[in-house]
Amino acid sequence: MTEYKIALVGFGGVNRGLAQLIAERNQSWRKELGLSLKIVGVTDLFLGSIMARDGLDAAELAKLPSSKGAFAQLPGGSAEAFNETIIKQSGADIIAEATFTNPVDGEPATTFCRWALEGGKHVVTTNKGPIALHADELKALAKRNGVCFEYEGSVMSGTPVIRMARETLPGAVITGFEGILNGTSNYVLTRMEEGLSFADAVRKAQELGYAEADPTADVEGHDVRLKVVILANELLDAKLTVNDVNCSGITSLSPADIERAQQSGERWKLIGSATRNAAGAVSASVEARLLDNSHPLAGISGATNAVSFNTELLGAVTVSGPGAGRIETAFALLSDIVAIHKSVSKK
Amino acid sequence: MTEYKIALVGFGGVNRGLAQLIAERNQSWRKELGLSLKIVGVTDLFLGSIMARDGLDAAELAKLPSSKGAFAQLPGGSAEAFNETIIKQSGADIIAEATFTNPVDGEPATTFCRWALEGGKHVVTTNKGPIALHADELKALAKRNGVCFEYEGSVMSGTPVIRMARETLPGAVITGFEGILNGTSNYVLTRMEEGLSFADAVRKAQELGYAEADPTADVEGHDVRLKVVILANELLDAKLTVNDVNCSGITSLSPADIERAQQSGERWKLIGSATRNAAGAVSASVEARLLDNSHPLAGISGATNAVSFNTELLGAVTVSGPGAGRIETAFALLSDIVAIHKSVSKK
Repeated sequence: MTEYKIALVGFGGVNRGLAQLIAERNQSWRKELGLSLKIVGVTDLFLGSIMARDGLDAAELAKLPSSKGAFAQLPGGSAEAFNETIIKQSGADIIAEATFTNPVDGEPATTFCRWALEGGKHVVTTNKGPIALHADELKALAKRNGVCFEYEGSVMSGTPVIRMARETLPGAVITGFEGILNGTSNYVLTRMEEGLSFADAVRKAQELGYAEADPTADVEGHDVRLKVVILANELLDAKLTVNDVNCSGITSLSPADIERAQQSGERWKLIGSATRNAAGAVSASVEARLLDNSHPLAGISGATNAVSFNTELLGAVTVSGPGAGRIETAFALLSDIVAIHKSVSKK
Repeated sequence: MTEYKIALVGFGGVNRGLAQLIAERNQSWRKELGLSLKIVGVTDLFLGSIMARDGLDAAELAKLPSSKGAFAQLPGGSAEAFNETIIKQSGADIIAEATFTNPVDGEPATTFCRWALEGGKHVVTTNKGPIALHADELKALAKRNGVCFEYEGSVMSGTPVIRMARETLPGAVITGFEGILNGTSNYVLTRMEEGLSFADAVRKAQELGYAEADPTADVEGHDVRLKVVILANELLDAKLTVNDVNCSGITSLSPADIERAQQSGERWKLIGSATRNAAGAVSASVEARLLDNSHPLAGISGATNAVSFNTELLGAVTVSGPGAGRIETAFALLSDIVAIHKSVSKK
């Protein structure tokens, strides 16, 4: 049994979910996973920060009100976010980075990852920014420092995609993938098939918490584009940047388009995809596509996400599951920690 | 780079597919997987056997005619199947067991596995018999002898199910599963939805090579029952035997049943499932079930197979892909060999 000291950077839904899981399940993890987690620091731009090398009470952290500077309410806490101190000085073995995604330069998350990796700490993150924009640099940094850098949750929350390809498909030869990688847009399309207008479907998605107040990144494909870059680089060893991916969304689809598709046994889906051609070049796109009902992604309804791997030896292998959610995404961090534990244990 | 000497037991479609893959891909595996395979023996009750500690020509083996005693045509080959000699004396590091499934006692495959494991050889198999009926004994035998026993292909050919659960879902807490685990019966149901009678749909499946001359094991659920036992014991740590699983098939479904389901937005599927209840007991069944179109397995059409894992932290996570096929099942053996290579390399 190994106890890992962990510091949480960003304390929104995801790391709060992880704190809740630690509070509820640390005991069973000892037996089932051979590990336990001790939170030694938390920092968040809005809530402030707190550090305790002897460990913080995970249940108490999970219950912290979401009010500005709330960490100041706890003994030893501060209303200020001492990010660098928490990352470098809390004595953590692992940094769980779950701040907001910045699609332009991946900051400040990328800097947080750099600090951690340079300091010889493992990093687990659910943040698309650092992975889509700086994965190569951060992976090399991790390697140089003999630590792990894991990011399963950057695509499809805790539903295994990156780790599934890495652990179960070597030798099958992945030649491309197609994915439904944004739950909001898939939910909107599903409701439009039930007769709602685009605007009403978006409103429904907002009511349910799937869509942001500004749904642009979801319905215009920008969110999917980041995930396509991550998966193409990870699964196809491409060197794509965001600008290499042609991107359009679902806003131009009319109720008549949707209805016509249904009548001919087809469905519109927002598909993020990439393919390696015979010469080895990888091309990628995000666009609304008309799928025949027999396509493995045609049956993916509502907020569910899915990726269909196209392989030489197996044809299409598809995984579907949640693409978002507090606990679902916190599980991605846990699965990364389990992978680190395996890697460390075999050394 | 490690070269493994491998002996093939049973030389029907699956191990012949593996020989073909070795002939075509050994070179690229050296680079991509860090391993290569050398066939040192093959034995088959119908074709005979052959052994060569310096290695056999995989391409030549793959092309061997399917005629009785055909191995006698090759230099050093025999029309007789010297199973025990090939398993024990060929100098193999790995035995690839792919003989026919015997659902009653798992023989002779189980004896073949025993011989190999007792002799300190790793075993990879695609055979449901030994796993559904004798997994505990064989796993213990492997452990005692310090070797690996892998059987990804016993369920859903090369589509990762067992390894997916083991490598990507620890900590998610699997509480049950539902699966479409027989391609023939799912193909029959899909064609019945298109208006065919049961008899005509079965005939179609036979023409396409999905169904045997006697389709009983497929359409009555017996094949699925073995897979449910394997998955329940593997994923839920159950101790089920075949008799613990209530089993019925799809033969009682009429075209009218199918049509009524379609009209109410539902689909009939042959579902193999198991659930762990609050007290820890696992119950399992095979039966035709009416699924709402929003169910993750409702969209699985034709000969495709799928398993939906029900988990505490992620809800339903579903994997779908081929459930049969020569090369697809041979990939299962390769994926088992890759897993052995990882396990051996870390020692």
